[in-house]
Amino acid sequence: MPGGTSSTPQYEALYNGLEPPPFKMPFIDSPDVVTSNTLRLVGETPDARKRLLFTSLTRHIHEFVTENKLTVQEWRDAVAFLNRTGNMSTPDRPEMELVLDIFGVEALVDAVNSPPGDNATESTLLGPFYTHNTQDVSHGDSIASEGKGEYMYVEGRVLDTEGKPISNALIDTWETDDTGHYDLQYAAEVPDCRGRLFTDNEGKFNFRAIVPVAYPVLADGPVGDLLLAMNRHNMRPAHLHLIVDALGYEKVMTQFYPSGDKWLDSDSVFAVKKSLIVDLETVNDSERAKALGFKNPDKGFKLLKRDIVLRRK
Amino acid sequence: MPGGTSSTPQYEALYNGLEPPPFKMPFIDSPDVVTSNTLRLVGETPDARKRLLFTSLTRHIHEFVTENKLTVQEWRDAVAFLNRTGNMSTPDRPEMELVLDIFGVEALVDAVNSPPGDNATESTLLGPFYTHNTQDVSHGDSIASEGKGEYMYVEGRVLDTEGKPISNALIDTWETDDTGHYDLQYAAEVPDCRGRLFTDNEGKFNFRAIVPVAYPVLADGPVGDLLLAMNRHNMRPAHLHLIVDALGYEKVMTQFYPSGDKWLDSDSVFAVKKSLIVDLETVNDSERAKALGFKNPDKGFKLLKRDIVLRRK
Repeated sequence: MPGGTSSTPQYEALYNGLEPPPFKMPFIDSPDVVTSNTLRLVGETPDARKRLLFTSLTRHIHEFVTENKLTVQEWRDAVAFLNRTGNMSTPDRPEMELVLDIFGVEALVDAVNSPPGDNATESTLLGPFYTHNTQDVSHGDSIASEGKGEYMYVEGRVLDTEGKPISNALIDTWETDDTGHYDLQYAAEVPDCRGRLFTDNEGKFNFRAIVPVAYPVLADGPVGDLLLAMNRHNMRPAHLHLIVDALGYEKVMTQFYPSGDKWLDSDSVFAVKKSLIVDLETVNDSERAKALGFKNPDKGFKLLKRDIVLRRK
Repeated sequence: MPGGTSSTPQYEALYNGLEPPPFKMPFIDSPDVVTSNTLRLVGETPDARKRLLFTSLTRHIHEFVTENKLTVQEWRDAVAFLNRTGNMSTPDRPEMELVLDIFGVEALVDAVNSPPGDNATESTLLGPFYTHNTQDVSHGDSIASEGKGEYMYVEGRVLDTEGKPISNALIDTWETDDTGHYDLQYAAEVPDCRGRLFTDNEGKFNFRAIVPVAYPVLADGPVGDLLLAMNRHNMRPAHLHLIVDALGYEKVMTQFYPSGDKWLDSDSVFAVKKSLIVDLETVNDSERAKALGFKNPDKGFKLLKRDIVLRRK
């Protein structure tokens, strides 16, 4: 005779109060019936957009299982993989997002939402390292603390598609330090290599920064395992993130990629668009570096000069 | 000038040492290019089965995004949903598995792996409440501690498809208590409403148990939210789980469903097959109940009498 268990469950699953549907569904006797019964129930979703998405999701997952005759062991491995990925995911460690990113999903979402061909600056992924915990900088200030890498000066104008300057556009920018890490990845919650500024009356912006470096995405978890299984490297080319927003215009989330990076055309997360590749000019002029405020002007700096074009709403 | 961050990242993402692929891929300028680039890289997966699965997965996820023109906000909501689900998932709380179950995925995996039509007992879902932490019971013993619900006596034979008895078949069985909870859901790690026994020389098995009850699946998390969004109840009909295994035969994982249950044809996880529905016989015979070992024979019991047929390997 077994011993009893304690009397209170660790959690209580409560009945949600809904009745069985008013229609009869056949009992399961084939894969087709599993699919048609699921679609029948999912098809009762009241919200039209959710109904569309749930229905499409059901069809695709079911086709995936059926086409590949997924085995019970593969199903269990998939659940274990998702559990492991989900358990690991934190705001500091975006494992789940990256799993989807390396399958091109975030890049595709960006692409399907990008209107075709005008001269507006193209968008790309937001990525997992955006935060509101940033710092306001004035024109000419540095977003990076001293000693974080090679100097870079960023300047340009925010324009509309007709070339007219947009004043008071908000530029929210962030990048890695010279070791390839974002401030969010450190224990100290101090913004660094990250800043916010507004364009002036002529639409101009300029700030000091550092040259961003290529970096590996997470390697010691599900993302790393998947990339290895695909025989793929886990690098992202160097980039500077920018979100540019102005009243009456469409906000753009984008990244600028210094040219010449070894990983540009095999980015782990498929984010590089040709128009976002920028040539950095090497400036070895200590007087100019000094005038721009660089603390060690003899080191020289790289110049990233690029206008940003916003689409009118 | 901002303050510096501390010098050691909380985790270190390491480069996996792989080089860019030997082929050139175009830069992203349309959704199609995102998809073709992803498929190109995924197509380099060395293992043939993984290559097939990753390729199929890529196609389906990409079609899902493209067909529905998934918005950036919907993408973020989906990532947040997966993170929330994964964060909540523990061995005691199988949130991720249940999310897939309510889309019929586990039922479909079972169905595509079930060979068609002989007289073998049909399989169905394993479910998340199986554990090796069980108890061995002898014939006639109870798998449930006293006071856990209405008495049930389970008896039958394990047979091959020609009707010959299979001796020494292992029966691993588990069920809810009368409140609809499995032992795993309680803090005490003592097996209850769960047991293991072998068939005798005539292929017979018999054990005391309790009548399982219908129960709700998790309601206070992502699964519950999804079911509500679909206007679906969160109930599973009552069932007794069994795994039956014998040397030289195919193991079967199945569930027996007492007939008459209100939720039989709208099971939240699509697991009910018609052949697995069983009629319980009501026995109001205190002498017989006493002879079978029930502690309160005046309560009577239900009889679940059913043979189990295994397929030869």
